[in-house]
Amino acid sequence: MEHGAHGEGGGKGRRRERAVEPAAAQNERPVAEESQDPMELAIQLAKRSARQGGGPFGAVVVQDGVILASGANAVAVSSDPTAHAEIVAIRAAARVLGTHDLSGCEIFSSCEPCPMCLGAIYWARIKRVWYACDREDAAAAGFEDEFFYDELARKPSKRRIPMQRVLRKKGLKAFQIWLANPDRQTY
Amino acid sequence: MEHGAHGEGGGKGRRRERAVEPAAAQNERPVAEESQDPMELAIQLAKRSARQGGGPFGAVVVQDGVILASGANAVAVSSDPTAHAEIVAIRAAARVLGTHDLSGCEIFSSCEPCPMCLGAIYWARIKRVWYACDREDAAAAGFEDEFFYDELARKPSKRRIPMQRVLRKKGLKAFQIWLANPDRQTY
Repeated sequence: MEHGAHGEGGGKGRRRERAVEPAAAQNERPVAEESQDPMELAIQLAKRSARQGGGPFGAVVVQDGVILASGANAVAVSSDPTAHAEIVAIRAAARVLGTHDLSGCEIFSSCEPCPMCLGAIYWARIKRVWYACDREDAAAAGFEDEFFYDELARKPSKRRIPMQRVLRKKGLKAFQIWLANPDRQTY
Repeated sequence: MEHGAHGEGGGKGRRRERAVEPAAAQNERPVAEESQDPMELAIQLAKRSARQGGGPFGAVVVQDGVILASGANAVAVSSDPTAHAEIVAIRAAARVLGTHDLSGCEIFSSCEPCPMCLGAIYWARIKRVWYACDREDAAAAGFEDEFFYDELARKPSKRRIPMQRVLRKKGLKAFQIWLANPDRQTY
């Protein structure tokens, strides 16, 4: 499927509030001739970030053809290891909508989401993912997404980062309190 | 290994600035008789969150036996799908240290990290993970961590959320710009 087939995610014309977060993730200066096409915009953001020495990644969240929010990688500039483009854009979209539930939204990323970002996409209930480059392209540029996918697929005891269980019985009490709370907010 | 063997992550005595983020993630009221033991504290935070109807999860980041930062799940209360306890604690620890690189730190979580949080742990270069409950305990309480692990291990084309590639050639330009930029900041 080629780019013209974005369909309902095409972001043609209409545009809701663009939530941008944080300043460092987008910078003050708008992208020159900012694209109204979500994938073109994601790539524009990635290229601008790369020119400035930041991670070469951009992402855009769309709802019903309207661009809700966008983000560029801001790991180095904001000293935040979680500030990948998709995370920045998802958090911004959630602020625009006032909910953690982005059901019905789509995300456009300049690169296949890493495990952290794909996990966030699942938790946010995003319905479709569009991406340009993939984990192998990212690996060629020095990023470890592919290795991390391999690590996550392993049993905890077989990973590079040691993982150790302690205090399970005490920990279970938190779940018991949660299940007994009629006011619990599921997500 | 039992709890007493936490070793260098034991957090005995010394305590550096505790970064807490956001207010909603921890609430104003401190935990009564807050534990100095990182896993006990993570579980305390999880239980308090559960009592208040929030996700029953807590996490603590430790460096050289000192508690750097902590967090509780704040997904519902802050309308942020990424605000899992580990993400909240990692972002707070990064702010304390002024860097995205948490090499040498350990994380204590009341439950096995989900794929999003484990991805964040890898990106942050955290050296060791301690957890109390696991993904099966979480599933019994209604959380989908285990399903998400299964999904991430699948090829993109085989996942529940459809994933579609477009514009790879254009996307690659961001990586080319990045690799050609001598001022690029790796992470």
